[in-house]
Amino acid sequence: MTTSLRCYDCGRTATLEDGKRCVCGEPLWFDVDAANFEWPDGDTAEGMWRYRDVLPVSSGPGVAPGGTPLHRAEGLDADVGCRLSVKVEGQNPTGSFKDRGTAVGVGYVLEAGTDWIGTVSHGNMALSTSAYAAAAGLDCAVFVPTDTPAERLELMARHEPHIFRVEGHYGQLYADTLALETDVRFVNSDTPLRVAGQKTVAYEILEAFAPDVPDAIALPVSSGGQASGVWKALRELETAGLIDDPPRLYVVQAAACDPIATAFREGRDEVTPVDGGDTIAVSIANSDPPSGTRTLAAVRDTGGAAVSVTDDETRDAMALLATTAGLSVEPSSAVALAGVRALARDGEIDADEEVVTILTGSGYKERFDTDVDARTRTIALEALADEVESVVDR
Amino acid sequence: MTTSLRCYDCGRTATLEDGKRCVCGEPLWFDVDAANFEWPDGDTAEGMWRYRDVLPVSSGPGVAPGGTPLHRAEGLDADVGCRLSVKVEGQNPTGSFKDRGTAVGVGYVLEAGTDWIGTVSHGNMALSTSAYAAAAGLDCAVFVPTDTPAERLELMARHEPHIFRVEGHYGQLYADTLALETDVRFVNSDTPLRVAGQKTVAYEILEAFAPDVPDAIALPVSSGGQASGVWKALRELETAGLIDDPPRLYVVQAAACDPIATAFREGRDEVTPVDGGDTIAVSIANSDPPSGTRTLAAVRDTGGAAVSVTDDETRDAMALLATTAGLSVEPSSAVALAGVRALARDGEIDADEEVVTILTGSGYKERFDTDVDARTRTIALEALADEVESVVDR
Repeated sequence: MTTSLRCYDCGRTATLEDGKRCVCGEPLWFDVDAANFEWPDGDTAEGMWRYRDVLPVSSGPGVAPGGTPLHRAEGLDADVGCRLSVKVEGQNPTGSFKDRGTAVGVGYVLEAGTDWIGTVSHGNMALSTSAYAAAAGLDCAVFVPTDTPAERLELMARHEPHIFRVEGHYGQLYADTLALETDVRFVNSDTPLRVAGQKTVAYEILEAFAPDVPDAIALPVSSGGQASGVWKALRELETAGLIDDPPRLYVVQAAACDPIATAFREGRDEVTPVDGGDTIAVSIANSDPPSGTRTLAAVRDTGGAAVSVTDDETRDAMALLATTAGLSVEPSSAVALAGVRALARDGEIDADEEVVTILTGSGYKERFDTDVDARTRTIALEALADEVESVVDR
Repeated sequence: MTTSLRCYDCGRTATLEDGKRCVCGEPLWFDVDAANFEWPDGDTAEGMWRYRDVLPVSSGPGVAPGGTPLHRAEGLDADVGCRLSVKVEGQNPTGSFKDRGTAVGVGYVLEAGTDWIGTVSHGNMALSTSAYAAAAGLDCAVFVPTDTPAERLELMARHEPHIFRVEGHYGQLYADTLALETDVRFVNSDTPLRVAGQKTVAYEILEAFAPDVPDAIALPVSSGGQASGVWKALRELETAGLIDDPPRLYVVQAAACDPIATAFREGRDEVTPVDGGDTIAVSIANSDPPSGTRTLAAVRDTGGAAVSVTDDETRDAMALLATTAGLSVEPSSAVALAGVRALARDGEIDADEEVVTILTGSGYKERFDTDVDARTRTIALEALADEVESVVDR
């Protein structure tokens, strides 16, 4: 189990016990020697554990995350404007991409022989951590904003974590938990253990395309933890000699709260907090992303971009996925597809390019305000034949 | 594309266009020549399509169902009373096992070059059919009872099917749709196309154990369509010479509505309708299962049993899965685990036996009446350190 960390920016090293940030202020990640990594042909480890050689732990409790479908969604090509594939992360055990990082975090706590794990989250990560802690027999503390909907809390409560609704600034809460002197191992969204797990989604995408490489990968961004993981994976795969020309990374935010896209647009090197407004993409409404600057470095390094989309564009993308690909995703996932559509429209992505959009979470965990009565009709059984023909013959 | 059907009971043959039932009254299934079937080592088809050689169609639209985790849940062995594995069918694209049969049905309609697909369902099957029809560009009509909760209808509505809420007897609706002269291909839960798809879950389980064979497979039963599919798979795998001694099939119902378990208990050869009462396992509360008698034959043929459990036993099993395995399942899935627990307690299943329980659907699509306030505590950010220590030190 390696515990050696490195700062992506200044190159300083640290250990996992030193803290979660570099002394320069930027986030750390695991210092992995990937030079000899090869695609694990024939490996029978479940899900993401096939990449255990480049992970800080080699297994974890519960159902293995990963191994999610990479689906070539030809039906959307014309509408979106590229050769589109979607990585369906909602098919992870708790319905989101967060399970990958959680599994590494929980696996680490188990190997370390300690008892507690914790996280700070709007929903998906708290649910994921609660579930995997239960599978591991660990105690779990999750910290959520006070405006977290009751229906999300109910999903978490099934796994019996300690749930704290915290009154105060979310960004401060995120930082304060990491600074605590406590036996609780916090695996927040851009911490090294979590980023190590999140990178496996890119390993899966790149292995599926090998020996080819997609032209671009697009994903929604909140803290920047997943974007950092994807970037890390690309760098490791370059080191391993498995890819020459990495895909461009496109990260997408909701326009109402887009500190990373703003910094990119303004040509800045550093992401600074914004006053975020309301958006339907609540899971990614992060006004002060702890790995924002790292994400900016990732998109610049790969020739990509950070962009934002309106809620209307997000709604359109969500409907397109549901009615054309049969996929129900959470709004934050649709943000990424809306971003690809906008980039294609603007000529940044070409129609013949292979683009993978990461659909981070299932839409089935959320309820929307749909007028169900307007979308259904009530009939008597005796009228069945007539009613069927009335729609078929239309 | 084979369209040859056979009656499991009297052996008569028919074609898919003849109708959905044998002239003897029992349901039909596809007449598959499995003698030369071999485990498809090295096959790279996605999900369940690796078994296309024994399916009526070789591919379908949308994200491929199947390839779901088979998880060895050691943590539950002592409590349940056997060596337990769970097949996590909630990780299918629309969150339930129904996607397997849907994919075959939709694939068939596409190959046949017609436009319409339909189904009769309490929820999961209607959602699944709506989603895959959308992915295929087919028109879709779903028929649900009038008491189907609005939140389920909302999930379906996202994929824009025609939703009919039908006033009248559900069993009659099921039969009437199959008797309609219409361009709509109804893929109800025990129709041949659907049963063909549902059998792939057993192929996956048996391939994962090969060359060994689990001692038993347990599953919830409603119409009997899935149980029929699993039995069909076992018979085909015996024909192929891939298993000698098939696992015992245990099918489990909710005690409030258990026509198959009642017939089994009473030693009858035929399942007759019951007056079903209320149960939390609404998805399987089928008082007149169309493949009930076939299911009875399946459990007798394999040396298994049909049993029922109380809602309290189901709640216990659901909580056990959530707090010990990190799995949130719908009540109908927990019914199967509760059944295994009861069978082990009664000595029908031994502690050293390998038992696979099929967890048919995700629990995240449903909401439970949890007193969230009682399960959370609201704190001020300033009190973070004290609050954390107050639970850790306990």
